[in-house]
Amino acid sequence: MAELEWRLGARLPGHDYGIFKTAFVDAEHPGGGAAKRFSLIECSDWVNIIALTAVDRVVALRQFRPGTREVCLEIPGGMVDPGEDPRAAAERELLEETGYTSTDWRRLGVVAPNPAIQNNHLHCYLALDARPTHAARPDGGEVLDVFTLPLFDIQAKLRSGKLDHALVVAAFGLLALELYELKRPEPRGL
Amino acid sequence: MAELEWRLGARLPGHDYGIFKTAFVDAEHPGGGAAKRFSLIECSDWVNIIALTAVDRVVALRQFRPGTREVCLEIPGGMVDPGEDPRAAAERELLEETGYTSTDWRRLGVVAPNPAIQNNHLHCYLALDARPTHAARPDGGEVLDVFTLPLFDIQAKLRSGKLDHALVVAAFGLLALELYELKRPEPRGL
Repeated sequence: MAELEWRLGARLPGHDYGIFKTAFVDAEHPGGGAAKRFSLIECSDWVNIIALTAVDRVVALRQFRPGTREVCLEIPGGMVDPGEDPRAAAERELLEETGYTSTDWRRLGVVAPNPAIQNNHLHCYLALDARPTHAARPDGGEVLDVFTLPLFDIQAKLRSGKLDHALVVAAFGLLALELYELKRPEPRGL
Repeated sequence: MAELEWRLGARLPGHDYGIFKTAFVDAEHPGGGAAKRFSLIECSDWVNIIALTAVDRVVALRQFRPGTREVCLEIPGGMVDPGEDPRAAAERELLEETGYTSTDWRRLGVVAPNPAIQNNHLHCYLALDARPTHAARPDGGEVLDVFTLPLFDIQAKLRSGKLDHALVVAAFGLLALELYELKRPEPRGL
């Protein structure tokens, strides 16, 4: 693996955009001698949560997203506060955004949203037997539509492109891979 | 859904970082009257490819990624050139990065890498019966280690965290959801 590593110079600051900062780093590959200035995006870690009710309904929400300028079908999630434990952040975000709580938390996995340019990680959790125990208290300025849908319907939403948030797809991918063996089944028209 | 939409002002330019640009947009929610300036990241569409050989080995690669400062286990992929068809971009990237080609292409899905702040989409493809027909010709400055591994091993790599690139996880999630029904199986220690 050592022959793949690049030698990195000092971090050069870019600009501060609030929810992320930009930076640059000069890099050189010791083998080929190639040199590049990489552009970077720095942000805090994120969490998202697949919360399932006792009858396997997913706690979901719709929210307008300015990146794609569309109302997006999502699961609860958000930023990990400085010094906060990711699991605590997941419990907090589920409660704040939806009013649901759970006493049965599982870790689905940790992924890097975009290793090429972003430095942060996304911590994905599964919360079982989730119940609506509180009123939702979304952040000032968050306008959310919270509802539940059957777990089985997620697949149809993915196939139709109605669920297209990559970090939500990744979480359901981790869940599916936890539940099933990844191998090609008997021929069925794939 | 209309009650979730924000009213957006003009795009305000940020900075040009080469592989992405930043911008801002002022937004107001017509209902609550909340106002925000959103920070945005603009980039071209991306593609990635799960290429399976005739014996279900995945064409994979390792590459140093400056965002996370780690050598990352990935599948082939890259940027869609201006005016290029995403499927053509997928064929081009598979060939350039690995030397593999396929005549049996399937569309796995289109996802938004980060709808909250990014405007672009990732087009995920499945290439069956992939064969090493050419020499790889990576871009100047790309240092790649190309190899194959059994599809079944992907699951272990995901569980151990060795495969943690969210956009690769999303692609395998789309594949798993294409192959299996998403419902909780009989109890098995979940």
